[in-house]
Amino acid sequence: MKAVDISFFQNLLGKDNAYFDEAHKLAYSYDATRKKFRPDGVLFPRNEEDVSKILKYCNDNLITIIPRGAGSGFTGGALAINGGVILSFEKHMNKILEIDLENMVAVVQPGVINIDLQKAVEEKGLFYPPDPASMNYSTIGGNVSENAGGMRAAKYGITKDYVMALRAVLPNGDIIRAGKRTIKDVAGYNIAGILIASEGSLGIITEITLKLLSKPKLKKTAMGVFDSVNSAMNAVYKTLASGVNPVAMEFLDNLSIKAVENQYKKGLPTNAGAILISDVDGDVMEALNSDLEIIEKVFKENKAIEFVVAKDEKESANLWFARRNCSQAITVYGSLKINEDITVPRAKLPELLEKIDEISKKYDIKIPCFGHTGDGNVHTNVMVDKNDENAVKKGYAAIEEIFKITVDLGGTLSGEHGIGISKAPYMNLAFSDEEMNLFRQIKKAFDPNNILNPYKMGL
Amino acid sequence: MKAVDISFFQNLLGKDNAYFDEAHKLAYSYDATRKKFRPDGVLFPRNEEDVSKILKYCNDNLITIIPRGAGSGFTGGALAINGGVILSFEKHMNKILEIDLENMVAVVQPGVINIDLQKAVEEKGLFYPPDPASMNYSTIGGNVSENAGGMRAAKYGITKDYVMALRAVLPNGDIIRAGKRTIKDVAGYNIAGILIASEGSLGIITEITLKLLSKPKLKKTAMGVFDSVNSAMNAVYKTLASGVNPVAMEFLDNLSIKAVENQYKKGLPTNAGAILISDVDGDVMEALNSDLEIIEKVFKENKAIEFVVAKDEKESANLWFARRNCSQAITVYGSLKINEDITVPRAKLPELLEKIDEISKKYDIKIPCFGHTGDGNVHTNVMVDKNDENAVKKGYAAIEEIFKITVDLGGTLSGEHGIGISKAPYMNLAFSDEEMNLFRQIKKAFDPNNILNPYKMGL
Repeated sequence: MKAVDISFFQNLLGKDNAYFDEAHKLAYSYDATRKKFRPDGVLFPRNEEDVSKILKYCNDNLITIIPRGAGSGFTGGALAINGGVILSFEKHMNKILEIDLENMVAVVQPGVINIDLQKAVEEKGLFYPPDPASMNYSTIGGNVSENAGGMRAAKYGITKDYVMALRAVLPNGDIIRAGKRTIKDVAGYNIAGILIASEGSLGIITEITLKLLSKPKLKKTAMGVFDSVNSAMNAVYKTLASGVNPVAMEFLDNLSIKAVENQYKKGLPTNAGAILISDVDGDVMEALNSDLEIIEKVFKENKAIEFVVAKDEKESANLWFARRNCSQAITVYGSLKINEDITVPRAKLPELLEKIDEISKKYDIKIPCFGHTGDGNVHTNVMVDKNDENAVKKGYAAIEEIFKITVDLGGTLSGEHGIGISKAPYMNLAFSDEEMNLFRQIKKAFDPNNILNPYKMGL
Repeated sequence: MKAVDISFFQNLLGKDNAYFDEAHKLAYSYDATRKKFRPDGVLFPRNEEDVSKILKYCNDNLITIIPRGAGSGFTGGALAINGGVILSFEKHMNKILEIDLENMVAVVQPGVINIDLQKAVEEKGLFYPPDPASMNYSTIGGNVSENAGGMRAAKYGITKDYVMALRAVLPNGDIIRAGKRTIKDVAGYNIAGILIASEGSLGIITEITLKLLSKPKLKKTAMGVFDSVNSAMNAVYKTLASGVNPVAMEFLDNLSIKAVENQYKKGLPTNAGAILISDVDGDVMEALNSDLEIIEKVFKENKAIEFVVAKDEKESANLWFARRNCSQAITVYGSLKINEDITVPRAKLPELLEKIDEISKKYDIKIPCFGHTGDGNVHTNVMVDKNDENAVKKGYAAIEEIFKITVDLGGTLSGEHGIGISKAPYMNLAFSDEEMNLFRQIKKAFDPNNILNPYKMGL
């Protein structure tokens, strides 16, 4: 970074908000992909005006900007793969600005941590449903930029379903608003809609207005045990198509069950082909019981060998324990976990899991699967020894086959993690040249000098 | 239109799908605004390939294209204000292609009429909630292009909440897909999100994949009678903030009530300041009754002088009669109805209605109001004598003041009708130069030669 650039940033923000030392470059060089790329500097804007001035300067001087939430992304969206300055909101722009009880809306800055927002609104009887697994550290800005999902997506949808309005800064420094604190708004193009999930490549989001719901008063948890993955996957889509609307319908396959049991000794059914864990919620117990009856009926029609309803919160937490701990537990199967978040139309789940099993056998690699099957999202984990070059190569070949199958089944490369750099090589499996060209035209419309998070998403 | 152009279209589509006679130009010159602009021709593409060839030719030859659903729009979105050819989907591209029970998805062509889709999916136990007042004739393509709302939006949201995927043709003839038949998809920019509500100005939608729900088994209707509009508006937002989630919470003011009663003699409370009509639905009667108890409680806390729950479908239909017929009935107040669909954050409804009352007094004009207050949307109707030039001028001055107030209250120019040409003059009240500039850049990215529905939305 040129001395003139460094002094511009330090004059604008103060030396304690603009760092160019090696320690900061190192601290902001990684994310959850474990890949490392050193940025040229780390900036902590104090407010939207700072962001505007930074962007204008960077646009005029062709300096790359990489916006960063908590760096918890799985696809490298926050990595400075080609240098540039990191823009972090964790120090200053991390406030819950308003919780509007009358309109059931929260207004937050991008650096607010997901769980802090959840707790703040729940104290007031309200509810912010999106709950990515990273919710204890990931930020709302990051959640919006990747359109994060979570456990409750089957019933409540994902981040995009809660974004009512955004404020953002364009590369030229223009500050724009998009959307309103209204349920409906059809004036002008849906700018908020395209900024969501754009991985920080179109504009820098500086304020987020989120829709809130009333917090459901009651919740119950059930678990079904199945002899095979196939039975469980049939049970998932048939339950959802039966008219019941569970909060979650989460899945663990035999390898995932065994890994958790091996580590924690919880008495899990290690001979089961799969388990499904499902929550239902609402304000009236009769409605929850009616939902559970339907779920039990459809599970048993689809060869569930056991069906348990938790009697209380402790039993519920016990049922959820396996799901919450499997991602870490399955590392027992290999020192390198190539994990993807493929998503298919729900009725294609049985076929998807069959094909993954075939690939596992073909390459002789363990591929434990679990995930948010209630919305068609399966976390597939290709486990290999990171020091075995041949195994790693086979692992990536297996992943490419899995992506191809997913797309053939009408699915998507990513249900919730985004593309970043990790999945960029596979974009051509999912998108035509014409579609990629349109993405490039849109990128150019927002960011003609390509200063915002370039080279992500295969662009 | 040049002879060479006419023969290109007739050769491509056949003479019975490409019309350039005066009768067709007249038949396709109007919409619900009652404004008239003759197009240069009317085309009925048979399939997506036709659309692609038409667009490529028009792009190469700089011929304007105006896509058209049923011509039921209130803002002139389907009008050929500067010539060009109309692209109509009503003749061929009007099929329900698939109702996928397993994934709860429908795939339709743009010319399918809303009510036909609703009926087809309800026969199979499924439910497509968006129900604009025009549902008996408006098309899904038009609904998507304007992001239509409806009576059920308070609980179920609007058209955009049901669009999972689109196929579309870009001006250069490129055919693209956007979105998947999956609940989640974060690969690539959200192209479907920006095509929705773009009023046919970015691409021509050729296929729409819609999310369906299970049809709720039970429904109940209630009506609250209030002595003043202010009490009713307080009741609306306080009910919604209480945690209950009614399907609809529709509003009629005193002028609207009187107009319906005057015409139909239904025994409506003509002395009431306002009535609210609310539906609740679900699968378990206890849950519906719990909702109705909360609504009754909040209504009465907010000075409801009467609260009635319909005993059966006939009584329910009777309660809804006033709401369904008020739009037409209020024409008794003037031969010109300047009707707008302003929308504010719900808690701002009391202030909005107070200010509209002040404007009504200031200009000495009747402004009956009714609408979807459950989502903050008020249909304001400035009623004047169309032959009284001075009254018409006052009417438009009143409308401009209403728009200003709406924007000041954090609201939007349009909740569901779109901008088209009718509201284009007011875009500068709602959007900054920077925001309008961004809209223009996006338009250019999709449509560099400005052939698709130009000059709409103030662009």
